[in-house]
Amino acid sequence: MDRRFRLALCQTPCTMEKETNVAAAERYIADAAAGGADIVMLPEMFSTPYSNRYFRAFSEPAGGETWQRLSAAAKKNEVWLVGGSIPELDDDKVYNTCFIFNDKGEQVGRHRKAHLFDVCIEGGINFQESKTLTAGNARTIFDTPWGRMGVFICFDIRFAEFAMKYACEGVEMLFVPAAFNMTTGPLHWERSFRARATDGQFFMAGCAPARDEDFLYVSYAHSLVTSPWGELLTDAGTEAGITFCDIDLAFCDKVRRELPILAARKPELY
Amino acid sequence: MDRRFRLALCQTPCTMEKETNVAAAERYIADAAAGGADIVMLPEMFSTPYSNRYFRAFSEPAGGETWQRLSAAAKKNEVWLVGGSIPELDDDKVYNTCFIFNDKGEQVGRHRKAHLFDVCIEGGINFQESKTLTAGNARTIFDTPWGRMGVFICFDIRFAEFAMKYACEGVEMLFVPAAFNMTTGPLHWERSFRARATDGQFFMAGCAPARDEDFLYVSYAHSLVTSPWGELLTDAGTEAGITFCDIDLAFCDKVRRELPILAARKPELY
Repeated sequence: MDRRFRLALCQTPCTMEKETNVAAAERYIADAAAGGADIVMLPEMFSTPYSNRYFRAFSEPAGGETWQRLSAAAKKNEVWLVGGSIPELDDDKVYNTCFIFNDKGEQVGRHRKAHLFDVCIEGGINFQESKTLTAGNARTIFDTPWGRMGVFICFDIRFAEFAMKYACEGVEMLFVPAAFNMTTGPLHWERSFRARATDGQFFMAGCAPARDEDFLYVSYAHSLVTSPWGELLTDAGTEAGITFCDIDLAFCDKVRRELPILAARKPELY
Repeated sequence: MDRRFRLALCQTPCTMEKETNVAAAERYIADAAAGGADIVMLPEMFSTPYSNRYFRAFSEPAGGETWQRLSAAAKKNEVWLVGGSIPELDDDKVYNTCFIFNDKGEQVGRHRKAHLFDVCIEGGINFQESKTLTAGNARTIFDTPWGRMGVFICFDIRFAEFAMKYACEGVEMLFVPAAFNMTTGPLHWERSFRARATDGQFFMAGCAPARDEDFLYVSYAHSLVTSPWGELLTDAGTEAGITFCDIDLAFCDKVRRELPILAARKPELY
């Protein structure tokens, strides 16, 4: 099995118009495929302003128009697609949901953000996602031709035990559509990815919206990939654009052999 | 309850002579107390060269001479003492053990390194602690006048779930006698402390032997303290010496309130 593939992080701009946002995602996916990407990734809530005021208004059910356009883009461009996240409407509840498609456009996974972003930092960000969103309650793992993958959404990354659970289930790469802000971004964005990658000895990829200082919620941006050694492999900066990263999952095996964390775990102690 | 105290990290030199090493520890403890320390910390294996060849030869039982001198130093100087670690002989097994004493010289805790350092990194460090040492099998928590504390020894820090378990048990500061090396130190020393502190939202203190490029095992040194935000509060560099750090455990409450990770955990998912 060839463990090597090319990942494209699409750091898309976000506007107040859903159609503009989804059309931009389609263009980015096509451009990523033209650049040789095998897997393409979009940001958290790429279709909507990141605001409790808009989540429900911008929400759609699974199988809705945005879902269909993502599926079609994956199929047309023959890429696997980690479709960032959109507000998903289900039984009158709204979830922060990532749909994952294979290169035939078939849905192979769905992750609903399991830990909602409810924080109130003195002199910094104040946000209560739970005012409008409902949390998911599952891990999301999908198998690809290259290896086993998992999904977090943004705040999920704060929970070290969640990442270790994925690692113990054989995950070799964790995709994290996310949108850190200007308080927590400088403090914890890069370090969280490096930490989770080092702990679980897997690759981590984060994809965020481009930064726009004039927008409702200012995304820290800096889409990135970290290695199983916790190294920063690429950093997209703050501008809109596509960042490519060539990944070889076989590196997980090497790190796990040389510094055997997973094998040395003592679950009876935790 | 006053949550504020002064911590002293004693980054001691290590020699081939146990008497020299223990006498140095005694001097450092006295100097730390003279500097106003409430809690004093020593490095991992401060009494012995860090080598499988010496652990058993340098080992002593609990209550042995080194234990007694640590106890006496804590009492005489009226400080709490996180006594780094020494090779502890018990029932013909050798453990990598930290003894903790209160300011009356009474033992209030004992941590046996739970995860042995067995690594073989290509082009880097190769060490198999399990050739001579036996692993402990417990968490170690002790209560002080300032708050609840826990202990790791070195490689224990690699295990994110272990730290989260301490956090869930109310620990507000984790002491880590340690001795990273010149392969893993530059890669992971500081980042591991920042990561564990951010995850568990507690203070972390690491105390390592001073660096000596000519010694058997070259310690990365850089004894340090990190905050519940993952900030680096102090870094002792590589030379022998005492580094003081004033700590206010009330800061844990603030961080845990503003960014509630522990309260938002979903154990059913991990």
